[in-house]
Amino acid sequence: MIIRPANSEDAEPIWRILEPVIRAGETYPLPRDVGRSEALAYWLAPHHEAFVAIETDAIVGTYYLCANNVGGGAHVANCGYMVAGGATGRGVARAMCAHSLARAKDRGFRAMQFNFVIATNERAVRLWQAMGFSIVGRLPSAFLHPTQGYVDALVMYREL
Amino acid sequence: MIIRPANSEDAEPIWRILEPVIRAGETYPLPRDVGRSEALAYWLAPHHEAFVAIETDAIVGTYYLCANNVGGGAHVANCGYMVAGGATGRGVARAMCAHSLARAKDRGFRAMQFNFVIATNERAVRLWQAMGFSIVGRLPSAFLHPTQGYVDALVMYREL
Repeated sequence: MIIRPANSEDAEPIWRILEPVIRAGETYPLPRDVGRSEALAYWLAPHHEAFVAIETDAIVGTYYLCANNVGGGAHVANCGYMVAGGATGRGVARAMCAHSLARAKDRGFRAMQFNFVIATNERAVRLWQAMGFSIVGRLPSAFLHPTQGYVDALVMYREL
Repeated sequence: MIIRPANSEDAEPIWRILEPVIRAGETYPLPRDVGRSEALAYWLAPHHEAFVAIETDAIVGTYYLCANNVGGGAHVANCGYMVAGGATGRGVARAMCAHSLARAKDRGFRAMQFNFVIATNERAVRLWQAMGFSIVGRLPSAFLHPTQGYVDALVMYREL
């Protein structure tokens, strides 16, 4: 697997990854009906450093890295990751997370924080724990899941 | 004390409240050197509903209310509060918080979350606890305090 910075030609394959995840509405607090341009403007925002993961010439995942806060909180990084529907369970998220931790450390961040991991997304929670993240907060009923109703969201954190 | 929606004529008194708090850099993760227009654009952002607190014809505090997330997280509110330097200790923050809780409930929010309460800001932590908020998360060393170095930040939450 190759992980490299995203460029403008990646917009369409990135959208093909984002769209079903956003439409499902089970893992990210984004409007399920958000349009292509708005979603790409968010994912590829100027303050997001975006990457794509490539396997046999196909983009199978994407992530962004940014500062979670400015000012006195600018030393903590944040990331979002999405994997193509047909590529789950093959270590793409794990590889992107490892890449992002190394990149964040290179950029001088001292820690990484995930603000809103949906508690029902158990595979993600286990993976982030395996990658060294701890659950440092639990937000009760903070996410309206499309089929499970109000569920908790977790704040996860690790030093770099 | 009167609390009313902020309007464009309030920009200057709001900035006079914001500036010393931002310059001190002890309570908000904002760049200490941020300029007037950028700070006001943040505080009075289109998705922020901003209010001012007035005592004897002077604006002594300001707060904003917004959704803390979109999509499946849009039912949780967020607020920021600032009190004029000469008006601390007189219940202005408490009155604004009570106002914001009522306003958030009126708007249909189901909970309120503070994402980043600096742990050394003990007066604020005690006040939010007195207003019904619980500490639901602790972010270790997530804030670089100008005199105390890296200190924890707290995530606080209450249902409405």
